[in-house]
Amino acid sequence: MRTLKLTIAYDGTAYAGWQLQPGKPTVQGLLECALKKITGRRAPTLASGRTDAGVHALGQVVGVRTDCLLPPETLLKALNAHLPRDIAVLEAVDAPDGFHPIRDVLRKRYRYVIHDGSVRDVFCRRTAWHDARGRLDVEAMRRAAAPLVGRHDFRSFQSSGAPRKTTVRTVFELSIDRGRAGQGGGPSLSDRHDHTAALSAFSDSFILIDIAADGFLYNMVRAIVGTLAQVGRGRKPESWPGEALEAADRRRAGPTAPPQGLFLVHVDYAPGSNP
Amino acid sequence: MRTLKLTIAYDGTAYAGWQLQPGKPTVQGLLECALKKITGRRAPTLASGRTDAGVHALGQVVGVRTDCLLPPETLLKALNAHLPRDIAVLEAVDAPDGFHPIRDVLRKRYRYVIHDGSVRDVFCRRTAWHDARGRLDVEAMRRAAAPLVGRHDFRSFQSSGAPRKTTVRTVFELSIDRGRAGQGGGPSLSDRHDHTAALSAFSDSFILIDIAADGFLYNMVRAIVGTLAQVGRGRKPESWPGEALEAADRRRAGPTAPPQGLFLVHVDYAPGSNP
Repeated sequence: MRTLKLTIAYDGTAYAGWQLQPGKPTVQGLLECALKKITGRRAPTLASGRTDAGVHALGQVVGVRTDCLLPPETLLKALNAHLPRDIAVLEAVDAPDGFHPIRDVLRKRYRYVIHDGSVRDVFCRRTAWHDARGRLDVEAMRRAAAPLVGRHDFRSFQSSGAPRKTTVRTVFELSIDRGRAGQGGGPSLSDRHDHTAALSAFSDSFILIDIAADGFLYNMVRAIVGTLAQVGRGRKPESWPGEALEAADRRRAGPTAPPQGLFLVHVDYAPGSNP
Repeated sequence: MRTLKLTIAYDGTAYAGWQLQPGKPTVQGLLECALKKITGRRAPTLASGRTDAGVHALGQVVGVRTDCLLPPETLLKALNAHLPRDIAVLEAVDAPDGFHPIRDVLRKRYRYVIHDGSVRDVFCRRTAWHDARGRLDVEAMRRAAAPLVGRHDFRSFQSSGAPRKTTVRTVFELSIDRGRAGQGGGPSLSDRHDHTAALSAFSDSFILIDIAADGFLYNMVRAIVGTLAQVGRGRKPESWPGEALEAADRRRAGPTAPPQGLFLVHVDYAPGSNP
């Protein structure tokens, strides 16, 4: 048996999320089906984390336990030939001994894209949250976001239904930038990261919210975005997100933003876990 | 009766092209259906030109004859509320007297997007031609394209089935650029134009081919792209597109590139036709 480390991208629009669910199309279901066709037997997969229905990935990491002896590059090509066009394997390598795609995560990076133009963008309807209620105040959102950076109890930004041992997480970065016409705006975190930067930077009616942390609670990015958007609209004061954080109560923060604006951009592993 | 000038964008993936066709979903069909719901009676539309099945528009121009008295801005909002999410009206204005959306065209701008990365891009599968056969030589394509600029008989780059009075057209611009990571590469022709620049510029595995002309023959952009791609792949010499042009024979040029990479970017009208 060996463990392969796959880096995959997917357009989550058509899927009920990453995780296997009976009778529903999921990314894990399609990937395991392709693996079975290629290797002839079931090869269980484990992702760095689940993504919800409609959420996208530019660099999800998946561990695969298999006794298949194909070279990783051959397996990559075979998988891409068997997977639907909205899922792609970007990289396949042999994982180091004992690699665990969840336990070994050092940091994850998400991007959320908001479109606040008055008319919808026909090419970004699956990859951005269109809020036509008016232009958001990005400067106010940025100031409001500052207290969320650092090591905190993020209980106020967690949806119920997924109990965790601890709700303390460390947010390393939380940047909010408005796109600029003709330029891939926003700070570059990685090559893959630039995809949505470029995709959403064609006009200044796109806002890019980038969050890097050592881990995320269930719906944490979308709850933070939904809260910051209330500030951007002028419905809540800039102090509100920080106060909601301190309250450690989900009811004190804003609504959960919709899934289609969210991208899992990159997963960093501890040096020993990188092949 | 008045004439309205609409500027519309559409993702052509789901449509059998612009033009009305019985029993098939077309952009014109959906637009006229929305107009009828809003104005209460049939309002005939005429576009600057047809686009084929799967071809997109960032700035198609449509003339509408109607006796509806709604202000253009109100009509724009009503249309966007009635149209599906892959069609959007970007601008609605009263056209000047005698405006004719086909006759008055001064120049049209198209963009074609090729993706030549080894692995497909899951977010651009509807908006780029993925050619996984290897990296294209953009410098060679650029040199090969030079003879096509200017006033020529473009008969070699016209699909049959659409007889025209003359096959002479003037190509004002034909630029070929490879995207650069994190930057909206390519020369900027207009604000709308930047959409695909940005969309496809997230990595250097995207090639942007921009063509501006006083008019285009049927499938002309796609035939030019299909021909230049053969040069980019090293299958044909750089002199081949120029020779094909001179031969004035469709069989001497390359295959027609697929529709999903093509965008009608902008239509320019003579000063008198602009409201």
